[in-house]
Amino acid sequence: MLLVRQLEKLLGKSRVSVDPATLVEHAGDKWFASHPPEVVVFAESTADVSKLMKFAYRRRIPVTPRGAGYGYVGGCVPLQGGIALSLARMNRIKEINFADAVAVVEPGVITARLQAGAREKRLFYPPDPASMKDCSLGGNIATNAGGPRCLKYGVTRQYVLGLEVVLSNGEVLRTGGRTHKNKTGFDLIGMFVGSEGLLGVVTEATLRLLPLPPARATLSASFRTFRQAARAVQEIFAAGFLPSALEIADAFTLEAAGEYLGKHLAPKGSAHLLVDLDGQPESVTSEVHALAKLLEKLKPIGARTALGESDCEELWNLRRAFSMSLKATGLTKLNEDIVVPRGKLTDLAEFTEKLRKKYGYPIACFGHAGDGNIHVNIMAANYHQDRAVYKKVGKALDELFHQVLAWGGVITGEHGIGIAKQRWWPDATSRVSRQVHATLKAALDPHGILNPGKFVKAVGGK
Amino acid sequence: MLLVRQLEKLLGKSRVSVDPATLVEHAGDKWFASHPPEVVVFAESTADVSKLMKFAYRRRIPVTPRGAGYGYVGGCVPLQGGIALSLARMNRIKEINFADAVAVVEPGVITARLQAGAREKRLFYPPDPASMKDCSLGGNIATNAGGPRCLKYGVTRQYVLGLEVVLSNGEVLRTGGRTHKNKTGFDLIGMFVGSEGLLGVVTEATLRLLPLPPARATLSASFRTFRQAARAVQEIFAAGFLPSALEIADAFTLEAAGEYLGKHLAPKGSAHLLVDLDGQPESVTSEVHALAKLLEKLKPIGARTALGESDCEELWNLRRAFSMSLKATGLTKLNEDIVVPRGKLTDLAEFTEKLRKKYGYPIACFGHAGDGNIHVNIMAANYHQDRAVYKKVGKALDELFHQVLAWGGVITGEHGIGIAKQRWWPDATSRVSRQVHATLKAALDPHGILNPGKFVKAVGGK
Repeated sequence: MLLVRQLEKLLGKSRVSVDPATLVEHAGDKWFASHPPEVVVFAESTADVSKLMKFAYRRRIPVTPRGAGYGYVGGCVPLQGGIALSLARMNRIKEINFADAVAVVEPGVITARLQAGAREKRLFYPPDPASMKDCSLGGNIATNAGGPRCLKYGVTRQYVLGLEVVLSNGEVLRTGGRTHKNKTGFDLIGMFVGSEGLLGVVTEATLRLLPLPPARATLSASFRTFRQAARAVQEIFAAGFLPSALEIADAFTLEAAGEYLGKHLAPKGSAHLLVDLDGQPESVTSEVHALAKLLEKLKPIGARTALGESDCEELWNLRRAFSMSLKATGLTKLNEDIVVPRGKLTDLAEFTEKLRKKYGYPIACFGHAGDGNIHVNIMAANYHQDRAVYKKVGKALDELFHQVLAWGGVITGEHGIGIAKQRWWPDATSRVSRQVHATLKAALDPHGILNPGKFVKAVGGK
Repeated sequence: MLLVRQLEKLLGKSRVSVDPATLVEHAGDKWFASHPPEVVVFAESTADVSKLMKFAYRRRIPVTPRGAGYGYVGGCVPLQGGIALSLARMNRIKEINFADAVAVVEPGVITARLQAGAREKRLFYPPDPASMKDCSLGGNIATNAGGPRCLKYGVTRQYVLGLEVVLSNGEVLRTGGRTHKNKTGFDLIGMFVGSEGLLGVVTEATLRLLPLPPARATLSASFRTFRQAARAVQEIFAAGFLPSALEIADAFTLEAAGEYLGKHLAPKGSAHLLVDLDGQPESVTSEVHALAKLLEKLKPIGARTALGESDCEELWNLRRAFSMSLKATGLTKLNEDIVVPRGKLTDLAEFTEKLRKKYGYPIACFGHAGDGNIHVNIMAANYHQDRAVYKKVGKALDELFHQVLAWGGVITGEHGIGIAKQRWWPDATSRVSRQVHATLKAALDPHGILNPGKFVKAVGGK
C-alpha cells in the first residue's frame, strides 16, 4: 500500500496531503534550501502524533516536524523526504492563568498571539524573535528562540516549565509542570528545547509568564564611530543598568535604512544604539533621563528619548526596518547570527570592515549588542546565480566564523545549526562534544527517523 | 594491589587519603544519611579527574563526586563505597572579566567568594542559596541551586555559559563558552547542570555575570492571616512588580524566631512578607514606597521599609534566623523544599495545618512565596531515636507530597532528589520519564560508576 494510503487509514484523510502545492509549502523555511516531503501530515492532537511516530518507528520512515516555517537555517527541510509533520493545526491556547503565572499552549500557537493573550491578563511572555507575528511557539521551542528582550529576560528555555513530547517510538513523555521552580531529576526540558526536531516532537508546553511591566521607555542615540557606540554599551552596564534591549547598528545598515525609509528618518552617524527600559512608570522615566545624561559624556551626534508604548515603537520603527531595508538593496542578504564575547564588539566591526575590503561585499552588522549577538549580513549580488560569487562568499564566511570562534565566540546565537551552519559544525564543536551529541541522538532516536540528514546522526543506534 | 596504593601511584600520595577522619568527613552532607567511601581523592586539576575516571571506568569502581558537602538530600553520599572525589582543592577563580561579563571558575570555589569578587568589579552573580558562605559552585551546578533572588534572576542554570566536564570514561568535554547566547547544537550544559553527579564531573565553569544593581530596598510586612499575606503576593505581581525576592513565613516560624531572637525582634501576626527590590537608587526608593502604599490596602499589622544594604540586611536578619530558630526548638527539622503553583499558597498553608492536627507535629512553612517554593518543615521529637515517630512522620510526608503533586506541584524545587526524596521519585515522575532518565544515564555512564545507588540506574548499559 502507498504511504499516503496507509497514513490516511491511520489518521483520517483530512490530516494527510500529497497535494503538490502543499508539498512545496512544506519543503523548507525562510532559508534557501528546500526538499519536498513525500507526504504532509497535519496533526490535530497528541494522539495523532503518537500514532504517527509509532507507525514511522516500525517502518523506519523519516519524520521532519515543523512549526510555522519561519526558521532561518533550513532546520525543517525534510532532506530525506518521508513525512513532513505539521503542528500548525494544534494551535489552542489551553489556559492563561494569572494566579499561577503560566500559560498552557499547543505548539502551533503563533508567538504574538500568546503575548497578546497574556497582556490582557496583565501577564508578559518576554521572548520576542523578529518573526513573532508569524512564528509559532513550537518552532520557538525547537530553536530556543531569542530576540532583543532576551538581554534582560533570557531566551525561550527560561520560559518553558513543562513539556509534553512524543518520542521517536511514539511514547508520550510529560516532564516538568506548572511550578516556577523544579529540581525533579535531570533537565529533560532543556534537552528538547533547542534540539531542532532531532530528539522528539513537542505537543504541549507550559510556559512561565511574568508580571506585565506597566511602563516602557526608549533611548535612541547615534554616534560618529562604531567604537563610541560599543563604548556606550559598556558604560551602560557599568552604571548598573540591565536594559530590556540594547541594540546596535552600523553605518551600512543605517545607510540602507535611509534609502528605504527616507533620509530624514535615518539617524546621522556611523553607529546607532537603541536602549529599552521597562518597569514601573516613575522608574523608567527617571532611568531613561539618567541614561541620556550618561551618554551625553560620550558625545553622541543625536539622542532622543521616548516614554510609552507608541512613542517607543516610533523609535523602534527604524530598527524593525533594518532587515527589509537590506533586502531592498536587491542584494542577497546572508544573515549570520554569530555571537562574540561582549568585549569584542569593536573588534568585530573592524574585522568585518577588513572582510568587506578583501572580498568586495558590503557587510551590514546590527543586532543585540547587549549580549554580543550581532547579525552579520554579507550582501552579495548574484549569489544564487553565479557559482563564483557563491564560492567567494563561502570563503568570506569561513574567515568570519574562524575569527569569531578564535575570539571565543559562537557561530549561532539564535537561529541554530540546521543546514545553513552544518559546514562549520565541526569547527564549532570538539570531537567529544559531537560524540556526546551522537550518543544522545542514538539514545532517543535509535533509528534516526527524526529530522534525518541534519548535523547529528545517531551512532551506536540499533 | 590495594585500591589506595593504585590511586597513589596514579595521582600522587598527596591527593589520596584513607585517614579515618577524612573518610567520615566525606561520608555525607547536611542530611542524615551517610556511608563512608573506601578512599578519598582530592583532585587538583582536570587531568587528575580525567586520569581517575579512566582508571575507575576500566575497573568499574564507583566514584561519587562532591563539592563542599552542603547538600540537603544526601546527594553526595557514596552509597556503594568506592571513591569519594573531592573537588574542594580546585578552588581557583581563573578570571572575572567586566567587558565580557563572565567569570571562569573551578568547581571548588565557594559561592560567596565569587559573589564578592564579582562585586569588586561592579558585577553580580545572583544565585544565593542559603549556604552560600559554605557551599561551592560545583555543588551549586550539580544541584542547580536556587535561593530567594531566583524569583527575579533565575536559578544557577541561567548563569552557566560554558562547562568543562569529565565524562565517566575520562574523556574531557568542553561545551558552551563565554558568550551570553549560544545555539550551537543540543543543550549539553543543561543536561549536566542539576544532574547530581550522575552524568559527569564538572571541572570548570564559565559563568554569566550581570551589571551590579547599585541600590537595594526592602519592605517587611506582617499580616493577621497567611491568606492575607498570600493575597499580598498576588497584588504585588498584579501591579507589575518583579521583586528580586519575595519571602513568606507562617505563624509557627515567627513564633520560633521570637523564642530564638527575643520577642521584640519578631513581628506580630500570623504571617510575614519580605519584599526585596534592586536597581537604580531613585527607582528602588520610589518603588518601595509604592509597594508600601499598595500593601496598606490589605491592612498589614505592621510594615517597615529600608534602603541600602545594611538597613535591608537588618530586616533580613529575621529571615536568615528562621532555620536556626527552628533547630533551636530541639525538635528534628525535616525540611522539604516542595513547590506549589503560585496560586496554591493558601491551600498549602491550610493543608499543612490539617496535617499538624492529624499527626500532632508542628509544621513550619517559610520560603520563596514568589515562585511557590515553600520550605515545609515537619518538626518532630525523637525522630531518629523512635522508630514509631520515624514511621508516622513518613506517613505525614507521604500525604504532603501526594497533595502537592495533585495540585500540579513538585517534591523538590532546590535540593534535588538525592537519597532523601528517592522514596517519592516514582510518584513524582511517569514511567516514560524514568525510562528517559535511565536511557540518558546508560548513554553517558554505561557502567553506572558515577554516584551509583541514587535515583537513576543505567539500564540498557554495557
